[in-house]
Amino acid sequence: MKTVIPYKKTCAKSRLSPVLSQEEREEFVELMLNQVIDILLEAGIKTIDILSPSIYGLENMSKANVLLDKSDLNEALNRYLEKAEEPVLIVMADLPLLSPKHVKEITSTKKDICIVPGKGGGTNALFINNPSNYRVRYYGSSFLTHCSIVVDSGQNFEIYDSFFAGIDIDEPEDLVELLIHGKGPAKDYINRRFNLEVSRGRVGLIPL
Amino acid sequence: MKTVIPYKKTCAKSRLSPVLSQEEREEFVELMLNQVIDILLEAGIKTIDILSPSIYGLENMSKANVLLDKSDLNEALNRYLEKAEEPVLIVMADLPLLSPKHVKEITSTKKDICIVPGKGGGTNALFINNPSNYRVRYYGSSFLTHCSIVVDSGQNFEIYDSFFAGIDIDEPEDLVELLIHGKGPAKDYINRRFNLEVSRGRVGLIPL
Repeated sequence: MKTVIPYKKTCAKSRLSPVLSQEEREEFVELMLNQVIDILLEAGIKTIDILSPSIYGLENMSKANVLLDKSDLNEALNRYLEKAEEPVLIVMADLPLLSPKHVKEITSTKKDICIVPGKGGGTNALFINNPSNYRVRYYGSSFLTHCSIVVDSGQNFEIYDSFFAGIDIDEPEDLVELLIHGKGPAKDYINRRFNLEVSRGRVGLIPL
Repeated sequence: MKTVIPYKKTCAKSRLSPVLSQEEREEFVELMLNQVIDILLEAGIKTIDILSPSIYGLENMSKANVLLDKSDLNEALNRYLEKAEEPVLIVMADLPLLSPKHVKEITSTKKDICIVPGKGGGTNALFINNPSNYRVRYYGSSFLTHCSIVVDSGQNFEIYDSFFAGIDIDEPEDLVELLIHGKGPAKDYINRRFNLEVSRGRVGLIPL
C-alpha cells in the first residue's frame, strides 16, 4: 500500500486570500502538508509520494518522495493510479484535523474503495484497493462523481463518516474549525494571526 | 434514557432568509423536526420530548411529547436537565443527515458525556449520563464551552466524530450538504427548489 498527496505551493489556496497574503498562504500550505505527512508516518504508512507540478517548496523534502508531473491534477493522479501495483490512498494536503486513527480505519476498509467526503461535495481522501481499475475526477461535486465511478466499474464502496477528516481548509470559515478543533503547527500558525469571534451564530475569525 | 429536541417554528432559521421565504423556512424546519423524530424512533428511543417556547406548529404532534417553556433555550434546557432522573440525549432539530446508527453509537458512550460537534463551533447533540450534574450553554462556541463544563464538573467525555451528524442546517451552504448527502422529506423539499451549482471549488446552490 502507498499514499499519494497532490500538492502545489505556488499561489496556493486563493480562496483564503481575503484573510492571508500569498506569502502566508504558501507558508501555511507547507505546514499543513508536513502535518499530513507526519500523521501518515504515525499511522505506519511506509511509502508516501507527493505529486506536484513543481519542485517549489519541496526542495528539502526528506520525509516523502517527490514526483513531478506538470499535468492537471486528475491527469497526473490517473497516470499515478495506472502505474500503481498496490492499493493507493490519495490524501489531500489540506487536512490538518486528520489523525492516525482515521488513516488506519480508512485503509482497513473491507470494500473496494473508501471515500472520505469533504465540505461542499469534495473528496478529502480516497482509498483504492485496485487502482488499475479506478480513475479519479476531482473538482466540482467530486464526492458524487467518485461514488458513481465506483458503481460504474462494478466495485463497491464505503463512505468514511468523520467530522475531522471531512474538514479541508479552503475558505476563511474553515480556519475557525482549525482553531477550535486543531493542534500542531498549522493551528499554531493561524492562532498567531486570528482570534475566534464569538456571537450567537457560528463562530467567526478576527485578525489579531 | 430520554431525548429532548429544542424547537421553534416561528420565524425559524433567519440565516436561510437569503434563499427561503419565512413560510418556506417554517415548513422546512417542521420537515426536519419530523425527520429527526423518525430517526430517533427508528433508533429505539422511547421517550421523545420537544421543548418549545410555543405550541405553534406542534398542535398535531403525535410522535413526541410537547413541553412548553417560554424561557431562553439554555434556561429551558437546564431546567429540563435538573428535573431529569435518567440519562438525557439533547438533539438539535436541524440535523437531517443524522441516522439511527449515529443515535445508537452516541447513546452507548462509555464516558459521562458524549459531545457531537457541529459546524462553526456548535454542539449538534449531547448525551448526558448524569443530567443533574451537568448544565448546557448553547450559542457561540458551545462545543468548547460544553467540553469545559464537563471537565469543570469532574466528569469525562467522548467527542463523537461524524461528518453527517456534524451537519446542522443554518446557512445556504448547508443546503448543499443536504442535497448531496441527504434523503427523505427535508432533502426532497430543498431538491424541488434548488439545483447544485458545480464549479471548480465547492458546490453551490442555484434556485430552480
